[in-house]
Amino acid sequence: MPMITAFETSPDRGAGLARDMRIRWALEETGQPYDVRLVTFEEMKEPAHLKLQPFGQIPTSEDDDLSMFESGAIVFHIAERHGELFPTDKATRAKAISWMFAALNTVEPPIVERAYVRYIEAGKSWQAERLAMVDERIRTRLDQLAATLGKSEWLQAFSAADILMVHVLRRLEGSGIIDEYPVVSDYITRASERPAYKRAFEAQRDVSRKAPSA
Amino acid sequence: MPMITAFETSPDRGAGLARDMRIRWALEETGQPYDVRLVTFEEMKEPAHLKLQPFGQIPTSEDDDLSMFESGAIVFHIAERHGELFPTDKATRAKAISWMFAALNTVEPPIVERAYVRYIEAGKSWQAERLAMVDERIRTRLDQLAATLGKSEWLQAFSAADILMVHVLRRLEGSGIIDEYPVVSDYITRASERPAYKRAFEAQRDVSRKAPSA
Repeated sequence: MPMITAFETSPDRGAGLARDMRIRWALEETGQPYDVRLVTFEEMKEPAHLKLQPFGQIPTSEDDDLSMFESGAIVFHIAERHGELFPTDKATRAKAISWMFAALNTVEPPIVERAYVRYIEAGKSWQAERLAMVDERIRTRLDQLAATLGKSEWLQAFSAADILMVHVLRRLEGSGIIDEYPVVSDYITRASERPAYKRAFEAQRDVSRKAPSA
Repeated sequence: MPMITAFETSPDRGAGLARDMRIRWALEETGQPYDVRLVTFEEMKEPAHLKLQPFGQIPTSEDDDLSMFESGAIVFHIAERHGELFPTDKATRAKAISWMFAALNTVEPPIVERAYVRYIEAGKSWQAERLAMVDERIRTRLDQLAATLGKSEWLQAFSAADILMVHVLRRLEGSGIIDEYPVVSDYITRASERPAYKRAFEAQRDVSRKAPSA
């Protein structure tokens, strides 16, 4: 049974944004039970954790003799091992892998940058102007994503790529930007209604409910 | 034979930073010949290209019935198809995949952000302060990467993960930051001396030599 790591005290207080959510969701979609080891921010910087995750982050996954890090890699591994999350057709699988990397390397960076502007640059004279600049970068990606999704339910048939893309997009909830894109907003809603998503979300939220105060 | 796309006029004037370099290098390491189709910035926004690359970027790869986008995905596909770029042992392969995602999702974002500060935020009153902030984010990642690399030649045995990581890091050349990390600087030099790297680099540079002026 895989053992994953997650925040003992998640910065989002259980809103489902921490990246172990991606792993939990993928495991739930494939019906795999898993164990969770919670780590504090101090523990994440200690040698024992750095041996599993050289950048001091969560999540990690340990399973038999396999030790992995990076949510994208772990979701990929789950999809590769259990059939449900990858298309069987070679050409469609190649496109799903393209979408996985697009979610993490093309769509996610400006969305994460937005959090830097909001939290790390709070109080700076330039914050409002920078936020507008980053939001334009995000809108460029959402324009393109909405054009591709069109009337489709998922990027292709539901796959590991949708897990990563939806989770990346969820960080925009509450920003107002996502409301400009009903196609994208509906896509997130559709994903959040999946039973596997709900189970993963509730499991992550339960950790925050029991967590010591930050 | 795979057909990849690349910039007709690369913003870096052939310095090897455009992302088709990653594909060229991986193909050279595995001894695969390939064709290149050059695209202008106008063509990248047109429906024919957006069908291959929904975000209007390069590179793409078309090979028999497979059409892929995102350099990470294409390098992964090359590694999966041709043995040389992936460890054969399952545990080591899982770690190589972790490192591929780490290069693109953990190390690359602050390095790309640095380019936004330098070029898009040029002339802004905050540019120097923001550059210092982004450089600290980069240093955190280089500290961790240098600690992991230590005296090793590569992340593991040379693999697709090194191709992505080295190419991501090369964007820091000339910043001065990389000189603070001899372990990382030596790693880049070691990679750049590989014959496959040199062939890929020269092929990309030749495109810029023949390109119409920007």
